[in-house]
Amino acid sequence: MAESLFCQLAAAGVQGLTPYQPGKPIEELEREYGVRGAVKLASNENPLGPSPLAIDAIYGVLRESGRYPDGNGFALKAALSQCLGVPANQITLGNGSSDLLEFAARVLISPEHEVIYSQYCFALYPLLIQILGAKGHVVSAKGFGHNLEAMAKAVNSQTRLVYIANPNNPTGTWLRSDELEAFLAALPEHVLVVLDEAYYEYVNETQYPYSLAWMSRYPNLMITRTFSKIYGLAGLRIGYGVSHPDLADLMNRVRPPFNVNNLALAAATAALQDHDHLQRSRKVNQAGMAQLTAAFTALDLDYIPSVANFVTVNVRKSGDKVYEDLLRHGVIVRPMTGYGLPRHVRVTVGREEENTRFIQALENVLEEFR
Amino acid sequence: MAESLFCQLAAAGVQGLTPYQPGKPIEELEREYGVRGAVKLASNENPLGPSPLAIDAIYGVLRESGRYPDGNGFALKAALSQCLGVPANQITLGNGSSDLLEFAARVLISPEHEVIYSQYCFALYPLLIQILGAKGHVVSAKGFGHNLEAMAKAVNSQTRLVYIANPNNPTGTWLRSDELEAFLAALPEHVLVVLDEAYYEYVNETQYPYSLAWMSRYPNLMITRTFSKIYGLAGLRIGYGVSHPDLADLMNRVRPPFNVNNLALAAATAALQDHDHLQRSRKVNQAGMAQLTAAFTALDLDYIPSVANFVTVNVRKSGDKVYEDLLRHGVIVRPMTGYGLPRHVRVTVGREEENTRFIQALENVLEEFR
Repeated sequence: MAESLFCQLAAAGVQGLTPYQPGKPIEELEREYGVRGAVKLASNENPLGPSPLAIDAIYGVLRESGRYPDGNGFALKAALSQCLGVPANQITLGNGSSDLLEFAARVLISPEHEVIYSQYCFALYPLLIQILGAKGHVVSAKGFGHNLEAMAKAVNSQTRLVYIANPNNPTGTWLRSDELEAFLAALPEHVLVVLDEAYYEYVNETQYPYSLAWMSRYPNLMITRTFSKIYGLAGLRIGYGVSHPDLADLMNRVRPPFNVNNLALAAATAALQDHDHLQRSRKVNQAGMAQLTAAFTALDLDYIPSVANFVTVNVRKSGDKVYEDLLRHGVIVRPMTGYGLPRHVRVTVGREEENTRFIQALENVLEEFR
Repeated sequence: MAESLFCQLAAAGVQGLTPYQPGKPIEELEREYGVRGAVKLASNENPLGPSPLAIDAIYGVLRESGRYPDGNGFALKAALSQCLGVPANQITLGNGSSDLLEFAARVLISPEHEVIYSQYCFALYPLLIQILGAKGHVVSAKGFGHNLEAMAKAVNSQTRLVYIANPNNPTGTWLRSDELEAFLAALPEHVLVVLDEAYYEYVNETQYPYSLAWMSRYPNLMITRTFSKIYGLAGLRIGYGVSHPDLADLMNRVRPPFNVNNLALAAATAALQDHDHLQRSRKVNQAGMAQLTAAFTALDLDYIPSVANFVTVNVRKSGDKVYEDLLRHGVIVRPMTGYGLPRHVRVTVGREEENTRFIQALENVLEEFR
């Protein structure tokens, strides 16, 4: 097989793919730039880390790691079932909630189908669809958020899936309960809505939907959530989906049998019970968001108001250049050029001292431009 | 979406899928049968569990679990590169080596293609191909192992992939270096061989191939290995593939960005250095294999000679019934009916006392039949 032969032989959807660009790991920055004590505000992680209960749970099962995990995730599904008030047969566990985004597409999408998502959506949605060789239909955003009316109009007989993130990443915008339910109610039954609620637990808005209550009315709704964000378990890779049991059954067929590791199962089950850690995480986030947005205002920088644990700010210069310059100051944020926002960077809300490091570095970097 | 609508809408390959049946977890047996102190010899796990170095490595990084793992797996790839003597750009990490089996298929296989595998092959191969809607071509085994001559004859212009397990699971048979290289040498360059070496480290046969040495000669060869077997990290989910760098690059595009968790990365990197644990695991396996096969001989039961950490035995009754009866005795093995061997069960080599428990239970179960 000559070097070029692989590329010729690769499936059509794979040939043109560019892999997802993750946030730069701290070790990588320190290795490449020779800096020490770097601060990472690039991947919307919880700066408090995992719940102590999750850590204890891992200690408790660590020595059993020679055994395959429970592929059915019995204990975690039972705990989620109780917390969420949905039967366990509507829950599917994933190696991060990104697994669920993919499983739904693999069940429903063939190359002749269309999938709808918004401008400024999470970068994984278009990637997943491209791998499957299907057509993605990007609907222009309204402001920086989803334009649900335009998304509804984009539905046709080939549409099988709509990805909606609420709140949206990377913009932090959100959809009200009334507008989202109106969208669901008007949608043809052959179209599945995957409602990505990765940042659900951060939202503090009275009109933000409690979407689980819609499950019985809209069998074509699937909700995904994650333990990677407020639960502080990003490293362990675990998330879940709530769907109609028939869809859960179909996703279970395309799911790798041991997609979730044993330590993640134990940690997530314990983390669900740690309400103190959740509250503490919310408070740190609210304070940090206030700290960051006050600094942006003082620097006369526009930012996109966000209900999540990150905020995207217009730096009025090349976001790529600001990102690179911040790296040299030992601060990792996320450039937004790949999302069509070449003058924005996205910063995760950190602990107070991390936010301060970022603000000072940003001031220096913007100063150097002058 | 009515209950039946999901099934109608599901992709053709998914509709007829039956999920992979994993070995029954110990907790599930204890929950369902009310037994205590059950013994699991069903999933070819290392009965010694993880290396102590791997456990220590997990302790060292556990509190960093709030951060996403390094999606590029820099440290583990560097360690593997050194151990195996192959450049890091030929290595792809997986959430278990099953990830690699799937990535290769997703890169190369479209519904018009054919994939070749052997009768009595690992149950995941046909499943992966069915999900992709492609055609699987099953080649009859020779004895209980691969018939390489017949597999070579089965190749046609639509063939893109051949799965070969060496040793084979669930039969424990193996292929010699000379016969396997002759097969590779005669294969058209448009066909990738995925050589599944999950049990590689257990083999103690002078004619067993050192397949890594073939990588430079056969760019259409990919080797997969795992940390789930002799390394005792099945719970953590980690394996790897070694391939041509172009194929590694293509697989990286279909790979979920954070498919491997942070603790698995740390544990595997440490486990690679623990030669004592590897040696101890081999010795326990050799002794246990001798114990089991001696018992089969004493019971006048035929077994398939195995070079791995399991052995498949003809119980001369319904394997499903013997499996069920053994469960009631608190011993979990694997029935082989799904593999077309209705009178066989597969048993993993355990520690001496586990093997003894199994042998006594088997004697009782076979006695009850009379």
